Amino acid sequence: MEIISSLSDMKKKSDEVRSSKKTLGFVPTMGCLHRGHMSLVEASVAACDFTVASIFLNPAQFGQNEDLDTYPGDLEKDKQLLESAAVDALFLPTRESMYPHGYKSFVTVEEITGRLCGKSRPGFFRGVATVVLKLFNIVRPHRAFFGEKDWQQLTVVETMVRDFNLDISIERLPIVREPSGLAMSSRNLYLSEEEVSPALSLSRALNMAKDRVQKGECSTGNIRREIRDLIENEKGIQIDYISICDPENFMEQEEISKTSLIALAVRVGRTRLIDNCIVRRAECRE
Amino acid sequence: MEIISSLSDMKKKSDEVRSSKKTLGFVPTMGCLHRGHMSLVEASVAACDFTVASIFLNPAQFGQNEDLDTYPGDLEKDKQLLESAAVDALFLPTRESMYPHGYKSFVTVEEITGRLCGKSRPGFFRGVATVVLKLFNIVRPHRAFFGEKDWQQLTVVETMVRDFNLDISIERLPIVREPSGLAMSSRNLYLSEEEVSPALSLSRALNMAKDRVQKGECSTGNIRREIRDLIENEKGIQIDYISICDPENFMEQEEISKTSLIALAVRVGRTRLIDNCIVRRAECRE
Repeated sequence: MEIISSLSDMKKKSDEVRSSKKTLGFVPTMGCLHRGHMSLVEASVAACDFTVASIFLNPAQFGQNEDLDTYPGDLEKDKQLLESAAVDALFLPTRESMYPHGYKSFVTVEEITGRLCGKSRPGFFRGVATVVLKLFNIVRPHRAFFGEKDWQQLTVVETMVRDFNLDISIERLPIVREPSGLAMSSRNLYLSEEEVSPALSLSRALNMAKDRVQKGECSTGNIRREIRDLIENEKGIQIDYISICDPENFMEQEEISKTSLIALAVRVGRTRLIDNCIVRRAECRE
Repeated sequence: MEIISSLSDMKKKSDEVRSSKKTLGFVPTMGCLHRGHMSLVEASVAACDFTVASIFLNPAQFGQNEDLDTYPGDLEKDKQLLESAAVDALFLPTRESMYPHGYKSFVTVEEITGRLCGKSRPGFFRGVATVVLKLFNIVRPHRAFFGEKDWQQLTVVETMVRDFNLDISIERLPIVREPSGLAMSSRNLYLSEEEVSPALSLSRALNMAKDRVQKGECSTGNIRREIRDLIENEKGIQIDYISICDPENFMEQEEISKTSLIALAVRVGRTRLIDNCIVRRAECRE
């Protein structure tokens, strides 16, 4: 596996791959890789001739009181994982090369970024969209792979790619979970032993909600209430939002719709966790 | 000259040109072409193997009370001019294809867009940067040609290209003027006969200022005052701003610096006009 730090070397490599008519797959990450990331990498390696993974802890998507400085990372372990998954190149840009002195340009995606995580984390999606555009312009992939755990982020990236006329196919992959049901996240490493049990209430609440829908419940108000009760039954967990909404524009729904996104965000101690699932109206009534 | 309306046809053409190792030059315009535009076109034709000009009246860069609906245009005349200048392709996208229903993504360039024209026309540079990024992504030029009359716009485009890691060389060309001194602008067509004389005070004021600097004046306060006096001596002209500033970040300067930008914006009747020139400290003191 080639390790590339300079932006111009990455561009050169991309030119080389593209001009030899190979398909270039790309998996952007912030490192601290887990099985969720690896499912993206494996999908890219399987589908593309050449796979680039990037590790870049993007300061532009962290708020002032967020965990930029303590975000977990183990570069050596990440390298081994990528190497053994047959990744062709690891792109490791520096902060200074990505955001040099005098950096001024940002991407904003309107409306959909004012809801869910965008409401709780102002500036977050601006930072995400900006760094993803920059990475896309440097790596120039044919296909880029993202996980559905960050459902809203995926939608923001898809919207930007469409609006800015980029020729990149965005590939969505399902959430990968621990055997316990906990959605894979680098931030799970923050959880103390006592915090694991409250953290599990997220996936339990989603399973309960799916079950309620399957049994005919269509009122999102009722389902929201039951999710809230289930989560608040745990100690040391604070709800940020419980949303049952349109999976494309994140407008809250009063009834389970053709497809509805159930999205949860909580804080367990100092750790922010999110999880989601899709439910379908057909399952609740027809 | 090929005329291309669909975005995907334009992308195909660009792929074709680029993969045959030809250099692609690009001149984005809003139509109503004058000798200023044609100097850009000629520079591109001279320097590049294949030149694309675009005509697109970009709604995103017009304010609610601005002249989007009355902006002058004569497509047949424009086509003839481009054809006779040996332009290879004219790109004519529709508004619906550029900003389809549900369009949400925008580029913001911070700091420098809050000054000069950005202060008078909120949202203007957001609209400019967004459409230029979109056009760049569709046309994928090696080189793009812009005129220095819109000095601040040029700086915004250069900043975006650098920050977003685009591989496009931005070529600056000098202001083209009428024999009277009036800087070429599509909006000059708005001027009534009586408005031409006040409009000429812009270039006269800049010439006067250059002369004052050459004769040793270094105080921007004094020069600003003399420019104001000269312009306000005309009837029916309203000053928007008189700026003597750093040509890169547009911060006002107290003294003429190594290089200073003198930028003027006025309204003559309902017509907004801008003009500018560069002066150098060496000329005033050393």
